[in-house]
Amino acid sequence: MIDIQNQSDTRDIPLEKVGVRGLEYPVRVLDKANKVQHTTAKADLLVNLPRNFKGTHMSRFIEVFHKYHTNLSHKNFLAMLEEIREKLDAERSFGVLTFPFFMEKKAPVSGQPGIMSYQCTFEGSVSKEGSEYFVSVALPVTTLCPCSKAISDAGAHNQRGVVKIRIRYTAFFWIEDIIALAERCASSPVYSVLKREDEKFVTEQAYDNPRFVEDVVREVYRALRSFRADEDTPLSFFSVEAENFESIHNHNAYAYAEYRE
Amino acid sequence: MIDIQNQSDTRDIPLEKVGVRGLEYPVRVLDKANKVQHTTAKADLLVNLPRNFKGTHMSRFIEVFHKYHTNLSHKNFLAMLEEIREKLDAERSFGVLTFPFFMEKKAPVSGQPGIMSYQCTFEGSVSKEGSEYFVSVALPVTTLCPCSKAISDAGAHNQRGVVKIRIRYTAFFWIEDIIALAERCASSPVYSVLKREDEKFVTEQAYDNPRFVEDVVREVYRALRSFRADEDTPLSFFSVEAENFESIHNHNAYAYAEYRE
Amino acid sequence: MIDIQNQSDTRDIPLEKVGVRGLEYPVRVLDKANKVQHTTAKADLLVNLPRNFKGTHMSRFIEVFHKYHTNLSHKNFLAMLEEIREKLDAERSFGVLTFPFFMEKKAPVSGQPGIMSYQCTFEGSVSKEGSEYFVSVALPVTTLCPCSKAISDAGAHNQRGVVKIRIRYTAFFWIEDIIALAERCASSPVYSVLKREDEKFVTEQAYDNPRFVEDVVREVYRALRSFRADEDTPLSFFSVEAENFESIHNHNAYAYAEYRE
Amino acid sequence: MIDIQNQSDTRDIPLEKVGVRGLEYPVRVLDKANKVQHTTAKADLLVNLPRNFKGTHMSRFIEVFHKYHTNLSHKNFLAMLEEIREKLDAERSFGVLTFPFFMEKKAPVSGQPGIMSYQCTFEGSVSKEGSEYFVSVALPVTTLCPCSKAISDAGAHNQRGVVKIRIRYTAFFWIEDIIALAERCASSPVYSVLKREDEKFVTEQAYDNPRFVEDVVREVYRALRSFRADEDTPLSFFSVEAENFESIHNHNAYAYAEYRE
Repeated sequence: MIDIQNQSDTRDIPLEKVGVRGLEYPVRVLDKANKVQHTTAKADLLVNLPRNFKGTHMSRFIEVFHKYHTNLSHKNFLAMLEEIREKLDAERSFGVLTFPFFMEKKAPVSGQPGIMSYQCTFEGSVSKEGSEYFVSVALPVTTLCPCSKAISDAGAHNQRGVVKIRIRYTAFFWIEDIIALAERCASSPVYSVLKREDEKFVTEQAYDNPRFVEDVVREVYRALRSFRADEDTPLSFFSVEAENFESIHNHNAYAYAEYRE
Repeated sequence: MIDIQNQSDTRDIPLEKVGVRGLEYPVRVLDKANKVQHTTAKADLLVNLPRNFKGTHMSRFIEVFHKYHTNLSHKNFLAMLEEIREKLDAERSFGVLTFPFFMEKKAPVSGQPGIMSYQCTFEGSVSKEGSEYFVSVALPVTTLCPCSKAISDAGAHNQRGVVKIRIRYTAFFWIEDIIALAERCASSPVYSVLKREDEKFVTEQAYDNPRFVEDVVREVYRALRSFRADEDTPLSFFSVEAENFESIHNHNAYAYAEYRE
Repeated sequence: MIDIQNQSDTRDIPLEKVGVRGLEYPVRVLDKANKVQHTTAKADLLVNLPRNFKGTHMSRFIEVFHKYHTNLSHKNFLAMLEEIREKLDAERSFGVLTFPFFMEKKAPVSGQPGIMSYQCTFEGSVSKEGSEYFVSVALPVTTLCPCSKAISDAGAHNQRGVVKIRIRYTAFFWIEDIIALAERCASSPVYSVLKREDEKFVTEQAYDNPRFVEDVVREVYRALRSFRADEDTPLSFFSVEAENFESIHNHNAYAYAEYRE
Repeated sequence: MIDIQNQSDTRDIPLEKVGVRGLEYPVRVLDKANKVQHTTAKADLLVNLPRNFKGTHMSRFIEVFHKYHTNLSHKNFLAMLEEIREKLDAERSFGVLTFPFFMEKKAPVSGQPGIMSYQCTFEGSVSKEGSEYFVSVALPVTTLCPCSKAISDAGAHNQRGVVKIRIRYTAFFWIEDIIALAERCASSPVYSVLKREDEKFVTEQAYDNPRFVEDVVREVYRALRSFRADEDTPLSFFSVEAENFESIHNHNAYAYAEYRE
């Protein structure tokens, strides 16, 4: 049967990325408390395409991903990308995996357990020269406005916000540790289950810890600068963004910073 | 040229609805302050299909809508549906139009002007027996939790929420009047622009008006029951829902009620 | 500690629904091939609120759901709703659970395995008088236009479409069986992995089976009318909708039908 | 009244970006056929924040944007960013504006008019050293698979796809010209209204012009390399991506390339 994709192309235009997007699959990732976590993911899998090839072979991406989907540790994610690179005869392969990551969390006073969901992303690229790998996590938080508190006779506007952290992975770390570190940097963490004694606690905690969106980014930044991955490895690159779903506006407040060695 | 859609169908299955969805168009709607408002809409346009026809003629929906898109008053929206019904030889036609509706709003103390956006929907159906028409509007508000305020030594959790109102249209009313009525029922309205003196005002206003999601629904319900459309016409049906993007949780609090004469 | 929610309300407005929305959790559901399937879900959990109560107790919804999330068979989903009803002292409880449901599917010629994802929904309501329960599934398909084929010298426009089926559950059935039944009703099923010999097969299969969006609905309707749940129980209610992401337009074609005994 | 934002910050962490996101506004942009086009936009407006300031003044972003929203030509968009930079005392300001852009388009044989919608984005940054400005447009197209056509006895799978083009703006050009150029590079353009004679035309046109997602990117790339903005200015940077909503899969095929002088 004729292989059109394999034909040569004379337009002399190399493509940075070619592949599949939006593949939805059940996956298993590492879990600090339970060793393995079942979740569901969307995957983008890509390679570069040299100028002289007409097309890529899309089915091979799925075949390789299918082999790895039940064990997507950081290490295996890169091994999967390397296998895609080889199977597609490419110089470079890329992958993005997005999934909800779940952790049990106890209410701060009653200890009532509930499960929290955090949006995570693995992004990797692999070539003969080496690999680059980034792990991201987005976590909901409470923020209480310092300005509103300072100028008002009582109360202070507060809201749900989301903090997104993106880290260049050079040594192993647990996503759970990043989440724990960042939740301490907002006015208060958020929870799945709060009984009345817990609600009193988080309300007062937020009121006692007013934070602008700018403050949240700076506090997380400071904490990540001190963070150490396995074997005491400091982070070589990270970015932090925070977005507040302002309770007094219909638009959001936003701040972003990044760190490079 | 053969007309496959017009062929007869022997499966003996009538279809409630057939047509086009997700058509994106610029439209003009009525505006209390400026007579006409330019906005952008997504439209679904449908008819029933009797058991003996194989298919409908999709292009006719667009042709009729194209004629009307620059003047979609309530009256014209129904006239458009009636014309679709006739052009498609159907017993019944349906239409849903969703669009952001804009209003200038001044900050409560400084008077600083900004534009607010409210998601609106027109839903109509037309047959020989008559027509049904519903107008919906979704508006962002601030809600402050009465429980959190009562049990905490200071502060109270609050958040952005959204109130959705759906009204059966039997006599003319302005969307602007529904928005104004509903915004008074939350802990505070939200604004596009707030200077510091305004932020103090809305923070204190919300703190003085704690409202559960249940309270917001009941307050809007009460106000709508007293509302009068043109010529002093009371509403014969409406529903109210409120959803809070809880600042202390990653899920939302929700309440819903409906009224029928 | 004061219980504001428990206070009496004098506005005399009962609320149809009060509760939580958008709770994201890992869940386990039944799986025909593997007994149990791990997936991730969004849940809405609600009860009615009588006119004389000020508010509901939101944390109890999560507590009950947390108990059940690892075993959400049809039976347990209703048991969970009944327990919510009791814990909240309500006349009626409601629940909606939405999740991707996964099935392995082999390519039609090469037999290459891949995993397909189908959006599923459980919707239930429970009161002392009894319960109502609906199971929905959305499946992607290929549709090829009969008109385009008939009038063109070569080729025919085709596209991805989605078929949504909603069934009143009165006796046990497997979601897998509904998916298999419905995929046969389009021009062709879609697959995760297709090698070249498979691509030839599905291209020709679709060309040999042209189907309007109206045809797909009628074919699925006809198949569901003959479908039997456990103990040879026919379905008492179902609806079928199909939506084509038309390859020649930027809007979609849509059809909908429903069946009632 | 105390100005908390203006206080000094000792954490020594500069923020790359601080501001507002998701502001929804009616706007007017340039239109080749009608001089001005009314549409609706979402805006992100940001500045950098030096290490020694605690916070930014969010209301000023809205005040400046409000002044400009009725006339957002390319020139005014940058003038608006410069005014934001000054009002916020920042070194650098950033803005992203996303909106549907509408064009009338006639069916290829019948000449029937309909309106098409294209997602557009303006992205700019302004500092004392100068400015950078990018204009993006996403357009729906039809693509027909060359492999499927070559290996099948009849027919070929085809689907809606979307082409996204991002251009560094250095001299004036019309978005309309970019759209016209890119639509010619797919298997066929898509339309709002197609009568039967038009449907025959586009079906046959697509069948005669099979294009992989890779081909579409290369064809657009080639056309943009030859494109000239005002005063015969070639483009100094652009990127092209194409994504096919594959009719035979539930995931998408994707290709990306970029050009730099």
